[in-house]
Amino acid sequence: MIRETALAARAAGATLAARSGAERRALLGALADALGDPATRATIFAANARDLESGRAEAARGDLAPALLKRLGLDAAKLDAVADGLRQLTAMTDLVGQVTLRRSLDDGLTLERVACPLGVLGVVFEARPDALLQIVGLALRSGNAVLLKGGREALGTNRVLTGIVHEVLSAHGLDARLCVLLEDRADVGALFALDDVVDLIVARGSSAFVQHVKESTRIPVMGHAAGVCHMYLHAAADPAMAAALAVDAKTTYPAACNALETLLWDAGAGAALDAAVAALRRAGVELRACPATLARHPELRPATDADFGVEFGALILAVRQVAGLDGALGHIAQHGSRHTEAIVTQDGAAAEMFLRAVDAASVFHNASNRFADGYRYGLGAEVGISTDKLHARGPVGVDGLLTYKWMLRGSGQLTASYGAGGRPFKFRDL
Amino acid sequence: MIRETALAARAAGATLAARSGAERRALLGALADALGDPATRATIFAANARDLESGRAEAARGDLAPALLKRLGLDAAKLDAVADGLRQLTAMTDLVGQVTLRRSLDDGLTLERVACPLGVLGVVFEARPDALLQIVGLALRSGNAVLLKGGREALGTNRVLTGIVHEVLSAHGLDARLCVLLEDRADVGALFALDDVVDLIVARGSSAFVQHVKESTRIPVMGHAAGVCHMYLHAAADPAMAAALAVDAKTTYPAACNALETLLWDAGAGAALDAAVAALRRAGVELRACPATLARHPELRPATDADFGVEFGALILAVRQVAGLDGALGHIAQHGSRHTEAIVTQDGAAAEMFLRAVDAASVFHNASNRFADGYRYGLGAEVGISTDKLHARGPVGVDGLLTYKWMLRGSGQLTASYGAGGRPFKFRDL
Repeated sequence: MIRETALAARAAGATLAARSGAERRALLGALADALGDPATRATIFAANARDLESGRAEAARGDLAPALLKRLGLDAAKLDAVADGLRQLTAMTDLVGQVTLRRSLDDGLTLERVACPLGVLGVVFEARPDALLQIVGLALRSGNAVLLKGGREALGTNRVLTGIVHEVLSAHGLDARLCVLLEDRADVGALFALDDVVDLIVARGSSAFVQHVKESTRIPVMGHAAGVCHMYLHAAADPAMAAALAVDAKTTYPAACNALETLLWDAGAGAALDAAVAALRRAGVELRACPATLARHPELRPATDADFGVEFGALILAVRQVAGLDGALGHIAQHGSRHTEAIVTQDGAAAEMFLRAVDAASVFHNASNRFADGYRYGLGAEVGISTDKLHARGPVGVDGLLTYKWMLRGSGQLTASYGAGGRPFKFRDL
Repeated sequence: MIRETALAARAAGATLAARSGAERRALLGALADALGDPATRATIFAANARDLESGRAEAARGDLAPALLKRLGLDAAKLDAVADGLRQLTAMTDLVGQVTLRRSLDDGLTLERVACPLGVLGVVFEARPDALLQIVGLALRSGNAVLLKGGREALGTNRVLTGIVHEVLSAHGLDARLCVLLEDRADVGALFALDDVVDLIVARGSSAFVQHVKESTRIPVMGHAAGVCHMYLHAAADPAMAAALAVDAKTTYPAACNALETLLWDAGAGAALDAAVAALRRAGVELRACPATLARHPELRPATDADFGVEFGALILAVRQVAGLDGALGHIAQHGSRHTEAIVTQDGAAAEMFLRAVDAASVFHNASNRFADGYRYGLGAEVGISTDKLHARGPVGVDGLLTYKWMLRGSGQLTASYGAGGRPFKFRDL
């Protein structure tokens, strides 16, 4: 049953992929317009109010986590932000069909590498119904079909949103089966088993949720990974800059995967450490300090070994002295999650060494770790932030939903004509 | 123990990655030179003769497959071919450190996306000892460390070859632990479990071997995948061209993954079918035909359903009539393995439709399926041919051994300064 649904989605997706970039753009514009229509909005808010009401009742009975309830609400501001995001996506260069390599292999034998959609995306997301619209926007922009499964607590809202997407698809002569809302929990297991039909699972939620999804399927999974991010105050760090960067990286959104978890400092960066400690404490951050840090700041709480390499997700920060750049690199290699690592220094050579040597998706010099984000990188929208090294690394935009194929156009060439004793290839990039 | 080995390899690899492209090139040149040295060659051949002798005894006892024995031999021609391949690799553009995107996010805040090595490769290969040198060449060129595990029947040869690599590394001031030969079968299990240290497994051998490796590890695996490749004779196919292409695609190396397994023909392509059938039979190919094909060629053997979607790996070819382009697309979608699919036609519009609609790593017009190969695509060398859609698709060259990282260079910027009510980003691609 789910297999048939997925195959129908694939076929509908192929139709979308064959359309021009302008047509896909128009589709997103129409969806953004629909979200601005007062009657449509009223329908959305009514459905969301019902979901919230049931959610509150469930939360009162202890059947729903309060954090999920918080993310369930969909107000005018969130809807406007989604519509803005869709319009930004329409402004981006169309990547589908882009030729990324064109090479003549011989006379009349031309090879092209052409970007194309992955095909069918499976999307699983926790409570937030706005995630549905964001992902649908990314999928339609990149010519992919989507099978969606949201949390049961948002089902009413998700049904209304999917209905709006279907109306827009139909109005543009596209098969509504391009975008399917799965409603049954059992459907998720069936979806995860379709590794011959579904090309990518996009998981939206906590890093624990993403990890759980990864363990449940053989299909590749993309989503926010755990982030154990460090900031290293080098001996040549500017104290005021160090303090401001540490506060920004730790406090602006402590639950985010790009938030700072451990502050490393060089013995020569005492003044920068002092400034950072003072500013972080003023911002309400609990600091857990290694013995060398404690010797300088006895007012802090001692750290245990278990405090390093941990994603606190809260206003808690581990602090450790390291022996120079090598000490910082060693600590990060051992405890980091290869997400985002930053150095603060006025010494350009030390910074370049750090940027080159650290093995992480994002490496920063004199900037807050929290810049590691698809919007801030100018990718227009974000599928997730990946700490995997294959395919897409770091913040992933629309191009993470694309693959490529090799097109070879000949005039009857045989491989037997080439090689030992035969014709040589005449490779020439065009 | 293997973990320590892998960590040492990672550290040694980082040193190699920090070297210039010219230095990595010199390393490969020195390795090619060493393989040309008469004394070195004598040592290699002596070790290989001993492996072959033991292998023959084992094969006689039925303990070694004859096919493995055949691939075990390493003669002057194979060694020359490997040395040539290494020299070709030195001629290629250095991809490590290449900046593939440079974007100003705001004044004094610049983002770069920089290509870098994956880190540590695990390589498992069946009998062929020349595969060891090819993979080491690819790894060194791309700045990666390698842990190698060959078949036990080639152990003597592999030890000598690894020794030569170590001498070259040492002569260039590099840690020999960059390239490690694992000798114990138990080491493979340990290698496959190192998903936090090893970044990619490269598997060299049959598609069944690659599949087995994929099922044994959570580390991403790259290697030749099963190929169920089709050729579709469109109504406007040129008969002589169709016959020559079908023979080339089927007979030049039937065991290859890019060899033809099923010939599809349009009812309007009867003359092309006749020409192909005659030529294939002359070339000794056993044809297994659907009822419509049999009606035209009663001399052929009837096909069963099980003959479609099969990788014969031998001089056997299934033949089926399909209802036009849509019929061909439907058959390929159902039975193909997304490897390499070809159309033969003089009708450019039909060809373009086929190239766009078929979901496969390689799609060809009027060219033999067997062109799907790293050397023939001008990639210089080949890691494998992938039917996966993420990371690398189709023939994979050195770039399949690379990832990228995002480097952000700032001057103290905070994320809190941007967004609602704050500074706008000033995105500008440089």
